[in-house]
Amino acid sequence: MEAAVEHAAEPRGYAGDKEAYLRRLKRIEGQVRGIARMVDEDQYCIDVLTQVSAVTKALHAVSLGLVQDHISHCVVSAAREADAAGDPRIVDAKVQEATDAIGRLIR
Amino acid sequence: MEAAVEHAAEPRGYAGDKEAYLRRLKRIEGQVRGIARMVDEDQYCIDVLTQVSAVTKALHAVSLGLVQDHISHCVVSAAREADAAGDPRIVDAKVQEATDAIGRLIR
Amino acid sequence: MEAAVEHAAEPRGYAGDKEAYLRRLKRIEGQVRGIARMVDEDQYCIDVLTQVSAVTKALHAVSLGLVQDHISHCVVSAAREADAAGDPRIVDAKVQEATDAIGRLIR
Amino acid sequence: MEAAVEHAAEPRGYAGDKEAYLRRLKRIEGQVRGIARMVDEDQYCIDVLTQVSAVTKALHAVSLGLVQDHISHCVVSAAREADAAGDPRIVDAKVQEATDAIGRLIR
Repeated sequence: MEAAVEHAAEPRGYAGDKEAYLRRLKRIEGQVRGIARMVDEDQYCIDVLTQVSAVTKALHAVSLGLVQDHISHCVVSAAREADAAGDPRIVDAKVQEATDAIGRLIR
Repeated sequence: MEAAVEHAAEPRGYAGDKEAYLRRLKRIEGQVRGIARMVDEDQYCIDVLTQVSAVTKALHAVSLGLVQDHISHCVVSAAREADAAGDPRIVDAKVQEATDAIGRLIR
Repeated sequence: MEAAVEHAAEPRGYAGDKEAYLRRLKRIEGQVRGIARMVDEDQYCIDVLTQVSAVTKALHAVSLGLVQDHISHCVVSAAREADAAGDPRIVDAKVQEATDAIGRLIR
Repeated sequence: MEAAVEHAAEPRGYAGDKEAYLRRLKRIEGQVRGIARMVDEDQYCIDVLTQVSAVTKALHAVSLGLVQDHISHCVVSAAREADAAGDPRIVDAKVQEATDAIGRLIR
């Protein structure tokens, strides 16, 4: 969870949907707490697993939203910047960073 | 999150590790809250994504533990019960249930 | 792809469905060849990706079938063997092996 | 596997690496054939599963390469086109298409 100080001035890709992301994460946090409650109440393992799958799916949806916001904001603005500076490496670096993040998602 | 009333009397596969599961889920809940904080503080999208991947991975580990506990307790005891009753369908039903749960994990 | 010599005498979990597995793998092989053809014909990257996802899904289905066969044959017969020998480690080893394989599937 | 006629004139994102992709797909095709041989020779289910996981992983790597090529070529050129035409919907459509494809990969 290292801070990305060098990016601090740019507006974030997800800025427009910030409230929606916070609401979704709040809901996911509640779902995780619900799973702990199920374990605490000795509920059936398969039912616990079903809930874990649901949370994993909800996290995937958040990831996908972040990837989309990242591509449409950060990558696209890097493309413009690269054109203005005549330096394609600016966009290449952003694309590589996005690809690495997607690779961690699909593992 | 439908309750599995019919299973209520059996001891759970994860019973022996209940405290360990609760600790792991508590930590995951904290990680989700940490992601919300990152979004709230406008941290860089790729750093947020990295954290989401970490939580997904932690949830996968919990799932895998539950699957292992389920097979070694519920499936194995169903195998014994099926032998005692001379009815292989008892274990088949448990195996099917486990497979369906694994299928939801690997999607 | 290390050979599992020590297992050579046991009947395989998938034995009953061998022909079905061979047919599914034949079809997957053809799908992979189809993807190569798409690349060779310079088809659109997103269409190629869609086909790669379809093959991945087909492989997941094969994996899930093998996991189910493994649990219902190898794990269940190890449970019986463990009971007969009074040695629970026999079934524990099989369950661990199955869990490791499932872990590689959900990554 | 619907053809994407409307894209037929554009050079493909993966064009530069076409030979590398064809070699990788050839190798994956051979791996799938190897799995069929393992099943045919009644090899141990866990060893078969290990090979299926290896092929799935190889396909993920191909997917990730295609996603990277798609973003760095198709999305970036759509960004330029959108700027030239003063129509942001051009790039939005490409980003949506890429996101949908990534969503199918992470499922």
